[in-house]
Amino acid sequence: MLAVMGYGTVGSGILELFYKNKENIIKKAGKDTDIKYILDIREFPGSPYEDKFIKDISVILEDPEITAVAECMGGLQPAYSFVKACLEKGKSVCTSNKELVAAKGAQLLKIAKENKCNFFFEASVGGAIPVIRPLHRCLAANEITEITGILNGTTNYILTKMFNENMTFGSALELAQNLGYAEKDPTDDIDGSDACRKICILASLAFGRHVYPDTVYVKGIRGIDREDIKLAAEANCHIKLIAQAKKLNGGQLEISVQPRLIGYDNPMSQVSGVFNAVTVFGDAIDRVMFYGKGAGKLPTASAVIADLIEAVKHDRTVFSQDWDDTDGSFTVPYSETFAEMYYRVHGNSAAETVRNIFGSVRFIKENSPETAFITDQIRMSDAQLYKERLAERGIEVRAEYAVTGS
Amino acid sequence: MLAVMGYGTVGSGILELFYKNKENIIKKAGKDTDIKYILDIREFPGSPYEDKFIKDISVILEDPEITAVAECMGGLQPAYSFVKACLEKGKSVCTSNKELVAAKGAQLLKIAKENKCNFFFEASVGGAIPVIRPLHRCLAANEITEITGILNGTTNYILTKMFNENMTFGSALELAQNLGYAEKDPTDDIDGSDACRKICILASLAFGRHVYPDTVYVKGIRGIDREDIKLAAEANCHIKLIAQAKKLNGGQLEISVQPRLIGYDNPMSQVSGVFNAVTVFGDAIDRVMFYGKGAGKLPTASAVIADLIEAVKHDRTVFSQDWDDTDGSFTVPYSETFAEMYYRVHGNSAAETVRNIFGSVRFIKENSPETAFITDQIRMSDAQLYKERLAERGIEVRAEYAVTGS
Repeated sequence: MLAVMGYGTVGSGILELFYKNKENIIKKAGKDTDIKYILDIREFPGSPYEDKFIKDISVILEDPEITAVAECMGGLQPAYSFVKACLEKGKSVCTSNKELVAAKGAQLLKIAKENKCNFFFEASVGGAIPVIRPLHRCLAANEITEITGILNGTTNYILTKMFNENMTFGSALELAQNLGYAEKDPTDDIDGSDACRKICILASLAFGRHVYPDTVYVKGIRGIDREDIKLAAEANCHIKLIAQAKKLNGGQLEISVQPRLIGYDNPMSQVSGVFNAVTVFGDAIDRVMFYGKGAGKLPTASAVIADLIEAVKHDRTVFSQDWDDTDGSFTVPYSETFAEMYYRVHGNSAAETVRNIFGSVRFIKENSPETAFITDQIRMSDAQLYKERLAERGIEVRAEYAVTGS
Repeated sequence: MLAVMGYGTVGSGILELFYKNKENIIKKAGKDTDIKYILDIREFPGSPYEDKFIKDISVILEDPEITAVAECMGGLQPAYSFVKACLEKGKSVCTSNKELVAAKGAQLLKIAKENKCNFFFEASVGGAIPVIRPLHRCLAANEITEITGILNGTTNYILTKMFNENMTFGSALELAQNLGYAEKDPTDDIDGSDACRKICILASLAFGRHVYPDTVYVKGIRGIDREDIKLAAEANCHIKLIAQAKKLNGGQLEISVQPRLIGYDNPMSQVSGVFNAVTVFGDAIDRVMFYGKGAGKLPTASAVIADLIEAVKHDRTVFSQDWDDTDGSFTVPYSETFAEMYYRVHGNSAAETVRNIFGSVRFIKENSPETAFITDQIRMSDAQLYKERLAERGIEVRAEYAVTGS
């Protein structure tokens, strides 16, 4: 039997989808099962599931019939304590809570293993898109070298509107809020921390060591100007919020979340609106891309239920999906990373000065009155120096973004 | 321990990749394992695996150490007899052989189940792209409504060259052959039977009943003219060889492989060169798309090894990945299906006649001297009637393709 913790958007989606497709779900699970409890501190009078609601976690913990639990409360507490307690009782947990997995994944996987149950989190990244399990299972014969993703639907929706309809950031954000794609306080999405948690989860799984969000370079989309979107288009590029983790030859990880120019010939550049995509590079596969809706009630519920089916089906198998804990030294400092860079600068005869400082660059616009250009691969610490030299010569940097190849 | 049957492109790729990433593969499998035998009738003197070669299947069948076997011989016989014999001995089989799965899948899955072992075939569709397992596992909570794919890299390469470089079909095919993307006898690719086998496998898995290739409407890309590719572009469409299976409300299946016009705003239209893509539509997920290299030595080997890892890891678990056998009545006859259609016709003042016969159409080109247009949704049996009426009025149909929406 199953329990659902948290009856918000995702939790109620789980109930809806489970009873809609129950016959098929039970067939896939290979055994009969049902949702016995819904844990939520709120009251839901008149709900068709009224008799399932409980307020006390110990009801779930003490009921030996419950073998798997869905956690969709969100946030770190009390989710963390509840999930930990369930795993310690040998009950598998399937979660959509990316904050929990990004902060406590290594520890919770270890507890699950010790207690011969599973901690699954397909729904924590990419909503309906199957990516955690394929990454772990289907690509198991590969040495994964890079993961690049558009992992936040809200920011992708805003950037798509800015590109397609020449909207300002402010009015695109307002539209997203009116349509329910962005929260009232959109900070987590707009400033990149949501995408950061997700790339941490994918990188941990792919590279075998926990990557903590605070070791990642993160830059959101707040400052993006329509002018840069127009100039990017002139260079046949979109601007997308790209989360990227690359394994370097020395074994360290380069990881960042930042707006990047991305060429039209890269399939990721075609991902528009609230859709998400994840591209995985491996030594045998070249690349595979997974694409779909990254959020929403039923897409996310679909991923949680797929995990529940797996948990019910293999209730005594322990899957070796895990990673080791780590310290900050696993990730390379941002200043030591390399990228092609896009700049938009303002100042008299800036193009000549730019040539002198950056050497070979590709101009998108010269001295009219702004200058925009794309550099060769440069080191971020050098980029810092070059910008100081521009400032010394009275040239102001108005925009600066990394560029991604094909 | 493992055995590999067939040491061609895929078989030798399995050996290469297995020994390259052995440490990681064993870690993922959770137990030590090795490739003990390679079955092939040919001699490979000087091969680093010389001591592993055998010519007699009974060596594998009689060795109780062998728990899982990779089959990459291709073709129906002797692959079918060998696979059947392995499964009857309780040895799991992982195959890249789409012909075998499309013809005998239901039967082999049944035999595997009876003998408490597994028959896996991730590599039979989409090469490196994880699609079989995600379809079966990750999307298990969904009612799948449609699967649409670009499943053949050779034809997609040819169509991409025709589109991008205005090549004729003949010279694009020749180029593909010179680069090794097309076989000397390219019939299976060009005429659609390779894509047909793959959509049959996906449809069987998604809809639970075996779909046999001979019940599918198949039309290849041989007749496609550069003129049609140019006219499609004027309607903001690519022409792609699209394999599609749709579940109709009555429970029957509409399934076809045919060139289709596909709008630029559909992400599948951006799949170019030898890449493949599969889009799955479900009631909870809207759509997810999987994209990657659909063929090649290491991509395919990667998929077979992922299956082998699964087989080794769960050597006593029987997965319920299966489907029932069926008869021809499961699929709808092509004449009863509906589609928007693209036509290019030749004749005096054809546009007026077209309006009279087809009613509302969208013209791409009128009377100069050819006429090209896209119809509303029409029934294929009606399309046949309309074409006869055109012929009666001296108007010749030079090209005819279905159109896919966004």
